[in-house]
Amino acid sequence: MPGPPGPLYLLTAGQALELLQNNAITVEKYARSLLQRINERDGTVKAWVHLDRQQVLEQSKTLDHIPQGQRGPLHGIAVGVKDVINTKDMPTQFGSPLYEGHQLGSDASTVAILRAAGALILGKTTTTEVSVTNSGPDTTSPHAPNRTPGGSSCGSAAALPAYQVPLSLGSQTGGSLIRPASFTRVFAMKPTHNVISPEGQKMVSPTFDTFGVMARSIEDLQLVADIFGLQDGNADDPQSATDIPLSDLSVAVVKSPMRHRAGPGTINAIKKAAAILKKSGCNVEEAVFPSSSSFPDEESLRRMQKVSMAGEARVAFLREYRIDKTKLDSSICKLVENSDNITHQEQAQALDTYGNLRAVADSSAAKYSVILTPSAVDEAPLGLHDMGSAAMNTLWTGLHMPVINIPAFVGAHGMPIEVSLVAGRFHDQGLIRVAKALSGPVVEEGG
Amino acid sequence: MPGPPGPLYLLTAGQALELLQNNAITVEKYARSLLQRINERDGTVKAWVHLDRQQVLEQSKTLDHIPQGQRGPLHGIAVGVKDVINTKDMPTQFGSPLYEGHQLGSDASTVAILRAAGALILGKTTTTEVSVTNSGPDTTSPHAPNRTPGGSSCGSAAALPAYQVPLSLGSQTGGSLIRPASFTRVFAMKPTHNVISPEGQKMVSPTFDTFGVMARSIEDLQLVADIFGLQDGNADDPQSATDIPLSDLSVAVVKSPMRHRAGPGTINAIKKAAAILKKSGCNVEEAVFPSSSSFPDEESLRRMQKVSMAGEARVAFLREYRIDKTKLDSSICKLVENSDNITHQEQAQALDTYGNLRAVADSSAAKYSVILTPSAVDEAPLGLHDMGSAAMNTLWTGLHMPVINIPAFVGAHGMPIEVSLVAGRFHDQGLIRVAKALSGPVVEEGG
Repeated sequence: MPGPPGPLYLLTAGQALELLQNNAITVEKYARSLLQRINERDGTVKAWVHLDRQQVLEQSKTLDHIPQGQRGPLHGIAVGVKDVINTKDMPTQFGSPLYEGHQLGSDASTVAILRAAGALILGKTTTTEVSVTNSGPDTTSPHAPNRTPGGSSCGSAAALPAYQVPLSLGSQTGGSLIRPASFTRVFAMKPTHNVISPEGQKMVSPTFDTFGVMARSIEDLQLVADIFGLQDGNADDPQSATDIPLSDLSVAVVKSPMRHRAGPGTINAIKKAAAILKKSGCNVEEAVFPSSSSFPDEESLRRMQKVSMAGEARVAFLREYRIDKTKLDSSICKLVENSDNITHQEQAQALDTYGNLRAVADSSAAKYSVILTPSAVDEAPLGLHDMGSAAMNTLWTGLHMPVINIPAFVGAHGMPIEVSLVAGRFHDQGLIRVAKALSGPVVEEGG
Repeated sequence: MPGPPGPLYLLTAGQALELLQNNAITVEKYARSLLQRINERDGTVKAWVHLDRQQVLEQSKTLDHIPQGQRGPLHGIAVGVKDVINTKDMPTQFGSPLYEGHQLGSDASTVAILRAAGALILGKTTTTEVSVTNSGPDTTSPHAPNRTPGGSSCGSAAALPAYQVPLSLGSQTGGSLIRPASFTRVFAMKPTHNVISPEGQKMVSPTFDTFGVMARSIEDLQLVADIFGLQDGNADDPQSATDIPLSDLSVAVVKSPMRHRAGPGTINAIKKAAAILKKSGCNVEEAVFPSSSSFPDEESLRRMQKVSMAGEARVAFLREYRIDKTKLDSSICKLVENSDNITHQEQAQALDTYGNLRAVADSSAAKYSVILTPSAVDEAPLGLHDMGSAAMNTLWTGLHMPVINIPAFVGAHGMPIEVSLVAGRFHDQGLIRVAKALSGPVVEEGG
């Protein structure tokens, strides 16, 4: 069997897995390639907050010693873990001085499941303070060191296009996964809320908090979705990407309540994506989303999001506040102190209204194979102190709908601008299959 | 100042706190009294799964060394912690062979907040397997060693009437807190969902999982509610228990959809409670709850509860299943395997419908000062292998409404039968005040 054509670090998880499963390479050899690449690139990118090279090599050797028949389905595949997700053998510091050196001794559920599948947990990637603030780490975009990779899953996003790791884990309460994926040109999936357990991941606002994954190919997202046992169980979903003729797919280009926030690059990317899909034979339709006249406007939605999240974050961070509020960012202290005087009555209303919208949104989504919508306002901002806005993402997070970021376009400064594909709740595998079918022409003809 | 009239272990948290704050006793002296009591009683009650006497005494001494001005508001008060809530310095074994010896280097948020307030974390109390199964620990009711204390917060419930600890922590997904409180005659509070962070507490079904507290007085529940920063922020709630003339209070004796499940002891207890409150001057009204004709019937509610919880538990326990399913109870394996073939479509519908009911229930509750409803089907069953039914509790858990168990009555076998007081979401402090006013006559004239 011929060896791989270039450096191992260039491989997607699926490509590396094939070599590992065929014993064409050892885990150690693969890990050494990634570590070498990290040595070369991380001086500029700064994606990692914890990486113990010795430990990585030891774990690689341990994996190599597992007899062939006992190896897991992700045997040897390296994964970067956002530092708000606990790892038993590495510190988890939540981007917070309060948690300097903090190490639990137990993995988050997601890490435990990946480890049980044979994954190599490579290290911890940078995050903003408890994934709430909008600046902090000095992580840079691998595409331009003077631009942010976006937050709060900044390290997980930056490590991928820097070819430091093929898979990374993140979390999203507003747009902390899809937005940095868009800024850095990677595939990312925010699954349906609570179809993957967030246990062991720092809580912010449990109604919105969602675990997610980033990769350099849609096939790798599929690989991870399978490991986490995602199932649609809906007979009407397409069962395989190869079964989907593009002419069978209907795409809703939505005019969401947030449409006025889109920048020129994003408007252009959506237009281009729609045109490409139309040309490829899809039924592309402009649609007001959700198609209910009673759906709240942008201002009401933003207020509801703020009220729900702030009310829950106030509870989530009381612990840190009580232990040492001098080590908490002032914005987090203000949340705990409820400095905006949000009433419980408004919080209950916001949670209920958002709850009601989920069924409405699902019905709207069910009319199409997929929804096409922006992943970010525009290109990544200049500098590292504004990590961008979640304006385009929070609606879908709150609606609990699965979202996949498809990298394809470039903006005015040559930086990535991507698009999101969205489906109804629990249609995660269906969304992956549709995204696989659609991403072909979009990525090819995109930018 | 005169010393306490009897053994220190008899004191409520509030009484002990007064002595500790006045330096009438040391934390060590108080802890020694509790440990002595545990030595005497726990051979029969078996409430503790972990109790390190040496560690307790060391922590007591550490607390005693804290200068007076730096002591927390719960200085020296002993707390028992249900063994599904993580503690940094003690094993947390989730009642599961998979977690034998498992110890995190970090407290659950609730434990961290209590510790920051000066509490003495005494030890870990028994629970059923991951708080899901309905038998397991050999904990007995302190009122009758041949009867269950109820589950899954069995140790936390049993330790209180055994005078082993004045405060204990539990959790409730169905009725795991209120039911054992009812079986063992203790005050218990299940607050509004998510007003106290469940971070670091084993997840089962995040939409239902709620942290809660047990004590031997309503004042002690108040003490803990204050530590956790519970606030109503509703100007129309009574601001103090002493301000409430009973004639100002209206009590809804509800005919909930679960009313047909009540046993004779419970029917009698509710009747008696209503009569006592009426005699005491309250406005007592029979009410169908919620007062909406579209509210689902018992069968629909039970199905929705099952579907929501099973769908979420399937996600919550994938980790344990993947690590070693041979060490999981077969009922939990069946949840993960979705052996009941629950579809995602039904799960989404159940979650949405339950969501819609919350506002309906709040509106119904707002018509009264408080709702009076059963805490359990009847007395604690005989034997330790059936820990009772959550039939009377799950509705309120799913509606996210705060519930307080008021001990007062006895059943046919002389075992406790209690009643629940329920309020609308986020009216936690108001509910405590009303419960304080009402529990006086109910406890006095009850059993």
